[in-house]
Amino acid sequence: MKRSVLVDTSSGKYEVLIDKDINIGQELNKIHKACHILVVSDDTVFDLYGKRTVDSLKEAGYKVDTFVFEHGEKSKNLATVEKIVEYAGSVSLTRSDLMLALGGGVVGDITGFCSAIFLRGIDFVQVPTTVLAAVDSSVGGKTAVDLVAGKNLAGAFHQPIAVYLDTTVFESLPKATFAEGLAEAIKYGMIMDPDLYKIFRDEELDMDIVCEKCIADKAKIVHEDEFDTGIRKILNFGHTPGHAMEKLSNLSISHGEAVARGMVIMTRASEKKGYIPEGSTKEFIEILKKYNLPITCDFSAEDLANAGSVDKKRLSDTLGLIMLKKIGEAYIEDINIKDLASYYEMGLNEN
Amino acid sequence: MKRSVLVDTSSGKYEVLIDKDINIGQELNKIHKACHILVVSDDTVFDLYGKRTVDSLKEAGYKVDTFVFEHGEKSKNLATVEKIVEYAGSVSLTRSDLMLALGGGVVGDITGFCSAIFLRGIDFVQVPTTVLAAVDSSVGGKTAVDLVAGKNLAGAFHQPIAVYLDTTVFESLPKATFAEGLAEAIKYGMIMDPDLYKIFRDEELDMDIVCEKCIADKAKIVHEDEFDTGIRKILNFGHTPGHAMEKLSNLSISHGEAVARGMVIMTRASEKKGYIPEGSTKEFIEILKKYNLPITCDFSAEDLANAGSVDKKRLSDTLGLIMLKKIGEAYIEDINIKDLASYYEMGLNEN
Repeated sequence: MKRSVLVDTSSGKYEVLIDKDINIGQELNKIHKACHILVVSDDTVFDLYGKRTVDSLKEAGYKVDTFVFEHGEKSKNLATVEKIVEYAGSVSLTRSDLMLALGGGVVGDITGFCSAIFLRGIDFVQVPTTVLAAVDSSVGGKTAVDLVAGKNLAGAFHQPIAVYLDTTVFESLPKATFAEGLAEAIKYGMIMDPDLYKIFRDEELDMDIVCEKCIADKAKIVHEDEFDTGIRKILNFGHTPGHAMEKLSNLSISHGEAVARGMVIMTRASEKKGYIPEGSTKEFIEILKKYNLPITCDFSAEDLANAGSVDKKRLSDTLGLIMLKKIGEAYIEDINIKDLASYYEMGLNEN
Repeated sequence: MKRSVLVDTSSGKYEVLIDKDINIGQELNKIHKACHILVVSDDTVFDLYGKRTVDSLKEAGYKVDTFVFEHGEKSKNLATVEKIVEYAGSVSLTRSDLMLALGGGVVGDITGFCSAIFLRGIDFVQVPTTVLAAVDSSVGGKTAVDLVAGKNLAGAFHQPIAVYLDTTVFESLPKATFAEGLAEAIKYGMIMDPDLYKIFRDEELDMDIVCEKCIADKAKIVHEDEFDTGIRKILNFGHTPGHAMEKLSNLSISHGEAVARGMVIMTRASEKKGYIPEGSTKEFIEILKKYNLPITCDFSAEDLANAGSVDKKRLSDTLGLIMLKKIGEAYIEDINIKDLASYYEMGLNEN
């Protein structure tokens, strides 16, 4: 069944198409005339879906070039960006041409950023191939790469012109990669969607439905706060400690796993503060376990707090920490950065 | 005498202040509360004005860090961008902080781009120290760095929150640097400002007045076409052949000199096409000579045309070439890219 979510942003509306076996070339033809497309992907994804994607684009009349980089977060830096934009320049991509991101979050973030800066901005299309990219990073126009100084510190707001989510690609995902995407999906349940929370708690998952719900939630937030100056920050639920874990583990903890562990910390802190009912954290942990997600954190509160000293969400000495008002409703608690460790301490300590 | 031009853009209005001996800290205090400022400059400019600028900011209550890179177009690349944003990250610049570009066009373009991408965009201030930066690159929000594939191919539209033009800095400029800035100033006379053209032809220059006129012209264009999809392209008068010359000379021809030579080509082509009166080119050349600007081009029409094959202004196979309707009025002539050499041929051939 074809599902579709419309995302309404300052740079126009675009559609997120959710379906099985999407013919990308045919779909793109409905909104963009023949042009030159640079397909950007990583080696893992391109091996699986590169040929199918390129063929479909060519059949639809597009001229296609490809740039494939080594998979993994370690590629998400300005060096890869430079290679891609140089390549785009060398094949004479113009302002009326497109980039297409075929892959997970890293591919989408890098490609989005490259399309944001090449010729001061050309259009791009997202074709997410992981759950994480599908429900989170491919929608909403946040693009970025990592610096040594911290994750996602260099980037741009740049909306795609379309997102094509073919949910059959989830079948090829390693179990851990699938699970880490679910962490971001479960997040929507926790921060704004009690119905989705119940699906995760009680039902057999239909990923088309889950994705549609998550993307509709995301679209709502992006429409309200495209440039991340307010309510959009609730999407960072679990991410402030999560980013710290990623950094402290030298990226050996994946993003989704770090977010899962981080959400446990923030849920428990919310429970201890008396914001959510007793037992909420226990129930939440059971859900994470059910979907093969980790729940513990081996770093100390102090280490987690210090690791986040360069975080782009931070305005001067205050920090907007995402806490839960209830299951299905998050809010931003402005705290002094020096109090961060005490929140983490609460969230880490089971007693 | 304090002069001021207001620039009205989609991201708000900002002031270009034109005066002698501006106290930057005091002026900035009027529009931005105390924060952390990263002053970015090159070694030449920083030696001359770094201390004065930093002291004035500190006296006004700002916390200041500085990043100084080697002067020259060869620094205008993604490697320098990476160093600057890493440095900004390492000193924990936040979204409520600022970058300040102290220098000429290269410094402004790089710093503007860094501020556009650091944390997905923070505010920045332009303090131009060359005529070129003053009348052209510091106003209007075009930021970029060069790629191997071509000049200014990676960048962003990002408006400054203020521009402080202290015209006393022109006194320290080498003669050739001053002259190349005048090329861009004279350009406004050619494309849209007959009164300015007459000043250059007939009067003794008062640079405060010249800058005010140029910046007011630029502000008008930027307001009408901030994102360079239409009329703003007339600012590229002389630039299409100029960029080709810069590239063919391996950047040994400076930007302003290349623009001067390029404007001669396009003026002569316009005259030969019968758009402007006979003798216009001769008069224009006399003006360039008067201000120590070069007028000849040693490259062939064919070489110039081929060197521009990757140019971000180009949409597919057509090219918007900036021609003159009269002295003081430019327009965009859409030509097929294969006809470019014949226009250059006309513009190069004095007979």
